[in-house]
Amino acid sequence: MIGGSLALSLKKSKNVETVIGAGRSQQNLSDALELNIVDHATQDIAEAVTGADVIVLAVPVGAIAVVCQQIKGHISDTAILTDVGSTKNSVLEQIQQCYGEVPPWFVPGHPIAGTENSGARAAFADLFNNRKVVLTPLHNTDPDALKKIRKMWQLTGAEVEMLDPQLHDEVLSASSHLPHLLAFALVDYLAANQQSDAIFRFAAGGFEDFTRIASSDPRMWADICMGNRGAILASLDGYQAKLDEFRQLLQQEDLDKIIDMFKRAKIKRDGFCE
Amino acid sequence: MIGGSLALSLKKSKNVETVIGAGRSQQNLSDALELNIVDHATQDIAEAVTGADVIVLAVPVGAIAVVCQQIKGHISDTAILTDVGSTKNSVLEQIQQCYGEVPPWFVPGHPIAGTENSGARAAFADLFNNRKVVLTPLHNTDPDALKKIRKMWQLTGAEVEMLDPQLHDEVLSASSHLPHLLAFALVDYLAANQQSDAIFRFAAGGFEDFTRIASSDPRMWADICMGNRGAILASLDGYQAKLDEFRQLLQQEDLDKIIDMFKRAKIKRDGFCE
Repeated sequence: MIGGSLALSLKKSKNVETVIGAGRSQQNLSDALELNIVDHATQDIAEAVTGADVIVLAVPVGAIAVVCQQIKGHISDTAILTDVGSTKNSVLEQIQQCYGEVPPWFVPGHPIAGTENSGARAAFADLFNNRKVVLTPLHNTDPDALKKIRKMWQLTGAEVEMLDPQLHDEVLSASSHLPHLLAFALVDYLAANQQSDAIFRFAAGGFEDFTRIASSDPRMWADICMGNRGAILASLDGYQAKLDEFRQLLQQEDLDKIIDMFKRAKIKRDGFCE
Repeated sequence: MIGGSLALSLKKSKNVETVIGAGRSQQNLSDALELNIVDHATQDIAEAVTGADVIVLAVPVGAIAVVCQQIKGHISDTAILTDVGSTKNSVLEQIQQCYGEVPPWFVPGHPIAGTENSGARAAFADLFNNRKVVLTPLHNTDPDALKKIRKMWQLTGAEVEMLDPQLHDEVLSASSHLPHLLAFALVDYLAANQQSDAIFRFAAGGFEDFTRIASSDPRMWADICMGNRGAILASLDGYQAKLDEFRQLLQQEDLDKIIDMFKRAKIKRDGFCE
């Protein structure tokens, strides 16, 4: 979905010659061909990267190590490698383990865009328009490679920003990874409830929006949780402490302090979505 | 918003003669008049209910007791009283305290519809179309009064269902009250984070949907939390136990079991939104 949307967007802006799609699922590759997302499709990733100018690893973050091994030795000397993973430290570690160091021609990236859907059929050219893309270059990252990847994302209409990888992982653990796990956990909790049928039957629009991200790809998000374990555990600890705080206010029937908490949240949330 | 939407819908279907709006805010009453939601508007609620056939209490559930006292003695012998509160036991208790018993001409109701917005300006006639309205009549509820309120909601396009008040409160604590408090708590937690600015700056569509309900009215939702305290504390306990379970899986790096949890949630959520 992310890789396909990037291909569609770059094709639309006429800034790519040939796009080769590599993947494990023949169905997904056939879809990508049929939808003109890719010009060629193959399950042989070593073949796909041979002669490529830019290689975009659009795979779950837990698959980076395997894919890196598969393409090693097949990449041209002038190729630029980048990724779209939601965690950056774990991707950098896997790249480092594969090459001994993070090569200067690897540009770590993360487009902060997506939907709960997956695969080529869910791709669309406008996905990154007016969205943020974070790049987390290291000290040894080649400035020309960085420039090229930045330009690539700008062509999709995205706003490109640079962040330290550690800060990226901390910030995203709070704004993205935590909400996803909270939504998965809520649906899983309610599904096991004695009144589960009635709970889902009487759920309204608020519940549908709140749990939309629980329809996201399970493997991809489990990988993200593993890949950003430390920051996510810290964010979860902080959130559980906040729930304990609320729990205590409710037990003490402290209406005023509950109103205060909800007011602070509403003001912040209204401001965020202005 | 709820009262105004009901008025607009009934006016549209030409099933009401005169709608009188009562409220504390002169601005909101002016808005309601200007938008033709009500034919008359007054801050004097005793005057508003005098001679009314049907009286709809569309106030925060914590305000039922006060409003009930204000209208007592001004209601005609043939009037039907109903409410739209998100908690039913606490509303019934307040009505009972006001009248010594829950009168047969009171029909407890809860339209499961709404947005994060409040007030007359947020009202719209289609709000209840294809949504569920729960009525929780008691043994002594007058069948004709119940029939009339059921018909009233059916005229808005809603699907009316009957539930036991206790079951209503348990089910809604899970599907509605818990998600709301989780969203309020998440935004309040992140707002106090050291990286708060970056967290909100790099938040995407998933976060926006997840936290939409944190833009809801703080007083109204604090009242709901207080009014359904027992069921909400039970739901929150169950959810915190589920978070602890996830926390342990992540600490143990049990990828397979995390994938299992997320898969169960995705299947349930995809099925719910089909």
